[in-house]
This record gives sequence, structure tokens and C-alpha cells, in this order.
Amino acid sequence: MFDNPERTNLEQLGEFGLIDHITKAVELKEPSTVKGIGDDAAVLDFSGKKMLVSTDLLLEGIHFDLRYVPLKHLGYKAVQVNLSDIYAMNGIASQITFSIGLSSKFPLEAVEEIYAGALLACQKYGVDLVGGDTSASVQGLVISVTSIGHADGEAVVYRSGAQVGDLICVSGDLGGAYVGLQLLEREKRIFLENPNIQPDLEGKDYIVERQLKPEARKDVVELLARLGIKPTAMIDISDGLASEILHICRASGKGCKLYEDKIPIDPMTYETAREFGIDPTVCALNGGEDYELLFTIRQADYEQVKGQPDISVIGHVTDADGGYELISKSGNVHPITAQGWNAFTSR
Amino acid sequence: MFDNPERTNLEQLGEFGLIDHITKAVELKEPSTVKGIGDDAAVLDFSGKKMLVSTDLLLEGIHFDLRYVPLKHLGYKAVQVNLSDIYAMNGIASQITFSIGLSSKFPLEAVEEIYAGALLACQKYGVDLVGGDTSASVQGLVISVTSIGHADGEAVVYRSGAQVGDLICVSGDLGGAYVGLQLLEREKRIFLENPNIQPDLEGKDYIVERQLKPEARKDVVELLARLGIKPTAMIDISDGLASEILHICRASGKGCKLYEDKIPIDPMTYETAREFGIDPTVCALNGGEDYELLFTIRQADYEQVKGQPDISVIGHVTDADGGYELISKSGNVHPITAQGWNAFTSR
Repeated sequence: MFDNPERTNLEQLGEFGLIDHITKAVELKEPSTVKGIGDDAAVLDFSGKKMLVSTDLLLEGIHFDLRYVPLKHLGYKAVQVNLSDIYAMNGIASQITFSIGLSSKFPLEAVEEIYAGALLACQKYGVDLVGGDTSASVQGLVISVTSIGHADGEAVVYRSGAQVGDLICVSGDLGGAYVGLQLLEREKRIFLENPNIQPDLEGKDYIVERQLKPEARKDVVELLARLGIKPTAMIDISDGLASEILHICRASGKGCKLYEDKIPIDPMTYETAREFGIDPTVCALNGGEDYELLFTIRQADYEQVKGQPDISVIGHVTDADGGYELISKSGNVHPITAQGWNAFTSR
Repeated sequence: MFDNPERTNLEQLGEFGLIDHITKAVELKEPSTVKGIGDDAAVLDFSGKKMLVSTDLLLEGIHFDLRYVPLKHLGYKAVQVNLSDIYAMNGIASQITFSIGLSSKFPLEAVEEIYAGALLACQKYGVDLVGGDTSASVQGLVISVTSIGHADGEAVVYRSGAQVGDLICVSGDLGGAYVGLQLLEREKRIFLENPNIQPDLEGKDYIVERQLKPEARKDVVELLARLGIKPTAMIDISDGLASEILHICRASGKGCKLYEDKIPIDPMTYETAREFGIDPTVCALNGGEDYELLFTIRQADYEQVKGQPDISVIGHVTDADGGYELISKSGNVHPITAQGWNAFTSR
């Protein structure tokens, strides 16, 4: 695609031309957006609600590999990853700013793909794109997203509110994004060794999609509101269940007991992990990028969640002396440690 | 400094260690900050005011050159550049998020310098640092800043409100940052040719500081409020006077007449531009990075601004048919065109 003779050159278009071109597709629908792109700053009006702000930086070669991530998916995922932080506060996202730095090796069509993905995510989640920055880069592709959301003052849920006896819940299923990544990495290696071999991802749609096109759990925030449940603590799962439950426990000054057999793992995740010789539970604990919500609720709310197919109760909160424990399927007790991803380790 | 044997390695520290280390120095003082760093999103409360959001992406090799930009200045400038956008809306900045991507060639001490600069800017301008992202980078240094501010609904000033007959005003003086950059570039070339020659910036403090350590004009926003003046349109000068006045004229559907002899240029800027054989007016028109405020006011407000040493009236707004004109010192009429900086041009 980059060698397409009809490619439109970014140098010809210039920064203002590029911004004009991109922003044509941007529509504003949120009532809290007073003014979007086109001035020095966006103007928002939340009329008395608490505002939420979160930001992420995504760098080529660290957070994504353009050899197997389609650009449109990349734009979509960059937005989802960031919205997920707003939902993890029990808020509703309403605006994003989307900034991009890219070298002139990218034609206009590549930029359009990234923005198309970002705008698709915005549309689907009811979010306005209200600003951003566009720059040349002498390095690789750089994406920075900031999302803005809101919640009634009382509704905001922090990581720090878990109480002894609370039930630990997780939405959806875990480990899929990590196993999907293993699959994509394997196919990339095969392709690099022999470019004539086409990637074999047949029947693996679910886990590939978990990696390339995650969906932030706005629906779970809405479901909890409908059920009348306010979690006592909440976080989104970006670095793996182990790392996230430790964040909640430490912020709350509590311990936890998780049960391996309660951790929701999709059958395709399970089988593919086995094919790779990896323990599926380890994928759920340390894989990351699932963007599910991990939260604690009072025991009194159990009746409300137990019939919900998309919520699993996986353990409970103990006092700090109880430590951080995983009870394995065979009944053994393992300490939970954050093997979380260290972005500064040489790889 | 990067070869210091006592350097602290980012790999040893890890992402969480780095975040803990950096955030120790962060204090929250703004009443609108409910919760800063440490959860999925920051929580802010503006109790009914309009909120302003602006974001910038700064990339090594495009926006800065580490061969002559000290890291602390870089952190400081990254914040100033972004706050400037909030002031350009006639708002007051109250929070920023500060994200950084950096390769392991940087020791912890380098990161500390960047954050020290960012926090100094926050402190000086009454802004809380409430979030951010920290990532490894396989490329160069990447900084992304988002600032958040507020204004009473009626106070917000857009680019689009200029009326025929309004006076065009600018704060401070122009062209200094560009001439400062020429000086730094020259000294870099000399240094690269002969590393034994020390940079000669003697007596050039003002213009070097205009380039390396710009100050956003919060004071001008406050001054205008004290004078009871609400500009009809406003923008900050990041790309040069020519480009910015065109933004105001186009957004307002108007023309303009600027007078060369009214454009404020500091004597040191003037002399140094001459030494380099550049027209000082061209530096003011097309140089950029001055981060002064360009605004239009009603003629009725003239009496209020005329005694202000920090505000110059440089022209007036005409109807769109009048075009965009600069009247030179000799009385000739030149069309104003945006030779603004095109970040996608190969250099």
C-alpha cells in the first residue's frame, strides 16, 4: 500500500491541508461539546458533573508492530484502550483528543486509515473527537490519545475502596488478547522466513480480534448502573489480572483470595494457549491487554450479579494480613505477584 | 551526563518504579483537582464553568534538538507551549497531563530533569499535574502534553469574533524565539566542527531564553480582565504573526491591515537578525514560537490599552474584500501570506 503510485504525499498537502482533510470527517454529537477542533482549545460544558481525564501514548515498536497491525485497527484500538480508563472510573467517556506523529513514508491514505479507525470507535461509543495535534516524525509512528468523561460526583469509583469480604468480579473473559498476540507473532516469523506463506489464522478470529480490536466495557458500566450496583473499587485490565488486583489491594490496603477455577477463559483461548505450551491461567494473570473491568462489590450485591453471563465472581477481598493468594484448581495456594509488563526491559 | 557511572538505569527501576519516583514530587493545589495521578483517570470538578482542553505532541528531531536544548528547559517549554493555548481562549489553565516516551539510553536523571522543568512550569503558573503515561521508546524522545483550563461561559474568546474596525493587538515582542534559534543552530554547527570551541552566547540571553524558555502570557489574560476588556478574537503566536492573523481573519470572515512600524521587535532581536542578514520583520511575521497573544479589541477599548507597555496596537480589521495587507515602513502594501512552518517538508 505504501508503494501505491496513486499515493498522496503528505509533503504536498502540508500540515494545515492534512488537518483540514482529516477533520472534515469529524462530527460533534455530544451535548457537552461546545466547540471542537478549529481553535486553540476545545470548549466543554459538564454543568456541575465531575470530569474524568486519562491519557495514553502509543509508540511504534513498543505498543504495536505495523507488520501485523492494520492501521485502521490501530486507530480503533488506540481509542478503546484510552476510553477503557474512563469506564474503569465508572464514568462515561464523551470526548477525546487524538494526536499523531508520522514520518513522510506514510501516504495520506495511511493517515486516513488510522483516523477512520479512531472515528469508528468514537461513533460506536458516543464520543466526540474535539482536538489533537498532527506532526511529522523522524522516528516511527506515534499516537497520543486523551479521553475526557464525566460522572455524577457520587458515582466515581476509585481503586482504593475495596472492603474486607467484598466479592472480586471480572467482566468477559481473560487471556485472549495475549494468546492472540502469540499467534500473530508466530505468523509474522513464518512470513519473514518465507513471504510466500500466507498467515494461517483460520478459525482463530476471536482471539485475533481480542488482540487487534478490543472493545472497552462501556456496556458493563451501564449494566452495573441498571442493576443499581456501585462497585467499591474498579480498574481496567491492561497489564493482566495479577497486576490489576494488586493495584486494587494496595490502593485499598487489603489482601485477596482468587480461585483459579473461577477465572473466565474462553475455550479458544484455552486451546490455543495449550497449543503454544503456555498455561491458560498464566495468560489470564499476566497476559494483559484484555481491557475487561476488574471490580469489587459488597456481598449484598451478589444476587444482582450472579445471573449475569458477562460477570464472573472470581474471589473475595481479605484483610491485608491475608496476602495476595491464588487458590489453584488442585487446592494449592500460590502468592500472586505482578509479573506485569516492564516496558523498559531490553527485548 | 549520559555516561555518568552513577546513572540510574531505567531498566532496573521499571515502569512502576519510574512512575512512583516521578510522582513523589507532584503536589496538588488547584481546588478543581479532586484526584490526580494514581487511578485510571484524574477527577476534576469545575462546578459549572466551561472547560478548555488542548493537546500537543513534541518529537525529538522535529520540535527540539537535544544537542542544544537542556532537558529541564524542554520540560518547561513543553508545558508553556500547551498552556499558551488555554490562555489564547481567554481561560485559566488549571491541570495538565504529561506523557513521555524515552529510550533506555536516557538514565533516570534525564527523566528527572524533564519532569523538574515541567513541574517548575506548573508551579509558576498554578497548574496541577494530574496524569500522564510513561513508556519506553525505540525511537527518540517523545513528549505529549494535554492542558485543561476553565473560563466563565461568557469569557471564552474564539478566533472567529473579529469585527470590521476592531484594533489588532499583540502582547510582548516578536521574532526573538526565531533569532534565538538561528543563534543556537550556528553555535551547534561550530561546535560540531570543532568541539573545543565553547558556544558564544554572551549578551544574547534574552533571545536565547525566548527560544529555550518561553513564558505563556497568563499575565496578559489577567491584565485584560483587570482592564475590563474582552477581546473579540484571540490566538497565540506559535507559527508566526502572519499565519496567526490569517487564522483570525479567515475564522472571522474578515480582512486586515497591519503596519510594519507598529510590530514590536526587541532591539536585541533586531540587531541579531541583521547580523544574520535576515529582515527582522520577516522574523516576526514567519518565525514563530514567540507564544505571545494576538487579539482584536473594539475601538472603544483603545483608551484602556494605549498606556499598557506590554500591549501594542499593530493594525485593524477590515472587511474580507480588503484582503490581508501589511503596510511597510516605506508605505508600500504587501499581501500577507502564511509561510508558516510546514512540518512535512523534507529538511
